Amino acid sequence: MALIVQKYGGTSVGTTERIKNVARRIAKWKAQGHDLVIVVSAMSGETNRLIGLAKDIQEYPDARELDVLVSTGEQVTIGLLAMALKEIGVPAKSYCGWQVPVVTDSSHSKARIQSIDDAAMRADLDAGQVVIVAGFQGIDEVGSITTLGRGGSDTSAVALAAALKADECQIYTDVDGVYTTDPRVVPEARRLKTITFEEMIEMASLGSKVLQIRSVEFAGKYKVRLRVLSSFEEEGEGTLITFEEDQNMEKAVVAGIAFDRNEARINVKGVPDKPGIAYQILGPIADANIEVDMIIQNVGEHGTTDFSFTVPRGEFQRTLGILRDVQTHIGATKIDADDKVAKISIVGVGMRSHCGIASTMFRTLAEEGINIQLISTSEIKVSVLVDEKYLELGVRVLHKAFGLDQAVEA
Amino acid sequence: MALIVQKYGGTSVGTTERIKNVARRIAKWKAQGHDLVIVVSAMSGETNRLIGLAKDIQEYPDARELDVLVSTGEQVTIGLLAMALKEIGVPAKSYCGWQVPVVTDSSHSKARIQSIDDAAMRADLDAGQVVIVAGFQGIDEVGSITTLGRGGSDTSAVALAAALKADECQIYTDVDGVYTTDPRVVPEARRLKTITFEEMIEMASLGSKVLQIRSVEFAGKYKVRLRVLSSFEEEGEGTLITFEEDQNMEKAVVAGIAFDRNEARINVKGVPDKPGIAYQILGPIADANIEVDMIIQNVGEHGTTDFSFTVPRGEFQRTLGILRDVQTHIGATKIDADDKVAKISIVGVGMRSHCGIASTMFRTLAEEGINIQLISTSEIKVSVLVDEKYLELGVRVLHKAFGLDQAVEA
Repeated sequence: MALIVQKYGGTSVGTTERIKNVARRIAKWKAQGHDLVIVVSAMSGETNRLIGLAKDIQEYPDARELDVLVSTGEQVTIGLLAMALKEIGVPAKSYCGWQVPVVTDSSHSKARIQSIDDAAMRADLDAGQVVIVAGFQGIDEVGSITTLGRGGSDTSAVALAAALKADECQIYTDVDGVYTTDPRVVPEARRLKTITFEEMIEMASLGSKVLQIRSVEFAGKYKVRLRVLSSFEEEGEGTLITFEEDQNMEKAVVAGIAFDRNEARINVKGVPDKPGIAYQILGPIADANIEVDMIIQNVGEHGTTDFSFTVPRGEFQRTLGILRDVQTHIGATKIDADDKVAKISIVGVGMRSHCGIASTMFRTLAEEGINIQLISTSEIKVSVLVDEKYLELGVRVLHKAFGLDQAVEA
Repeated sequence: MALIVQKYGGTSVGTTERIKNVARRIAKWKAQGHDLVIVVSAMSGETNRLIGLAKDIQEYPDARELDVLVSTGEQVTIGLLAMALKEIGVPAKSYCGWQVPVVTDSSHSKARIQSIDDAAMRADLDAGQVVIVAGFQGIDEVGSITTLGRGGSDTSAVALAAALKADECQIYTDVDGVYTTDPRVVPEARRLKTITFEEMIEMASLGSKVLQIRSVEFAGKYKVRLRVLSSFEEEGEGTLITFEEDQNMEKAVVAGIAFDRNEARINVKGVPDKPGIAYQILGPIADANIEVDMIIQNVGEHGTTDFSFTVPRGEFQRTLGILRDVQTHIGATKIDADDKVAKISIVGVGMRSHCGIASTMFRTLAEEGINIQLISTSEIKVSVLVDEKYLELGVRVLHKAFGLDQAVEA
């Protein structure tokens, strides 16, 4: 007997047949005696259809009214899922965001949750009802409908779990958990039974798009026990996202290997090695709303230094154009650039207490003749930039080198 | 400078292009200095699409959840129309039923409006905003979404006009007003500049489906000045629905001719002429949820009488089946029936003070050799049942006989 929040994404509720499947799955949990709060997304494709209607009318749709429009997507799903549950004899009741209410600030299309009143849901749970809540939406102080932004249903689920002090928040998605790396690149990749929040955040931001990153941060902040599961498999425990302090079991030093092909490298050579130079280079790029990822500055010689950074590949030409405009001003001798690069990262909280992880990574890549262009490190990850053509090879040899193909978990 | 409530139906907002047209029309009214509250329906086809999804899941969808689902139709329209107005520089703000709020009872799918708080709308109007309200929906005392039933957007508009004490409630539809009869049958049919509420109710219930009948009753009760206009024509005054006491102008005795092909006649012959016989015949039919329209009982001879009534044509066979089961019990000698009949009605408040209207009707039909099978009268209408093949001829000759092809209005 536990209180469980489950979240089903757009693909899981993409057709009325799939909604019926979700209802049957919920009925099984209910039959086990659990109290259930279900958070759902819009049926897949629906949000895009609605945005398409809006764009027929306004190139940049009014933010308040766009939220009125797109929030109907989740409202349709909660109604249908409640019907599907009732059809198989499970008492259920739907809630729009404003009915809970989920109170947010007034930043339409990217609102932040401020408070959740659990009284009404609690009363329905006590009465034996399955509570179904529209994800992604809330209501602001003046009574307008707000949305949390794309993928916000994950955040809704975690926030509801926090407000209800739920025993677990289960995110059902189209993968059955978090893997040591992408199985399409490394067939030996294994599903992790557990991963820490910090590792999950590094893995997610590095391209393992299993969970919306904000929801993971939220879960970490409010200590919500979070689990990722497949909505298409009946069995399976998925991956539990844990707090580091829970980890008493023996655990691999490296949890997983993330990678990102969407990188382009820019190397600004021979700039004067003086204070403010990084700002002079990156300021105009930030002003152009280009997101910079890795940033490296080496100690220079003869009063000059080399400055390198990466940007999303789609922004490569625009970034180069900006830099050429300011090249003379910043006194750079040369701009060297390459958009055929990729980033490989090893991630693991175990790195903190284990020396030599980075050097094992560098040695492994060197043995395969893979040149490292840039290195960037944080407390629990090491990222390297390599020629894109070596990406798959690099991920495979590192996966093996850190023993990720062997089940080492307790 | 007036406060006007305008209602646009599903066809008028059926595409984003049409929504833009509606926005331009509203902008013109706004430019004239009027305060505007706009009520909209779901885009045409949307409500049926949503009901289709529900029926995929439940043959008889749960009433509360069906309201959650179908109310999204109007919510989509209000968001899009608000965007379309802002796009052309007209300040606008959308309201769902619960945001007004429009408070109803809890009879899901056929809720009745109990109260409307006009404070929020009034503040927005004072601030120069066009207020856009989702028709057809409200909120009940426990905070659940309710709907007023099909066509309920007309009722929403009239109720809002009453609550706001609006100067006029304009219903935009795909016809440009109320006609003396159906122009497809009588090309000389004229648009009425005015019609009384009582006449409108008789015309509507007799098959002139211009306005939802409940909205007309509501307008009559709260003395709302109601006007029907075309949403596809830029000019035109439509038809104003007036209170009889307003009518000082000379007016035709007969306002219009309504007709209904959806009739089947049943004649129960030779039943004992005793108290309770009508109930014995109609009771089992009412129990089967069959709606009976005209009911006639003649004075009989030799202690027996003939009893006639009409039912919708689709219920003809079922009605006959029920009667055959009870024929012996009620002591009828014969059941005579015909499903190739139609009803023609002349409607007009002038009948009250003019004698001979009914006899003019009967004479006109007799001159064309049209036999009258049944006659039914009320204070402001006379209905006759005729062989279906004479329907068009009957309507045409009556239209001419009562001078409806000539403009006689002030």
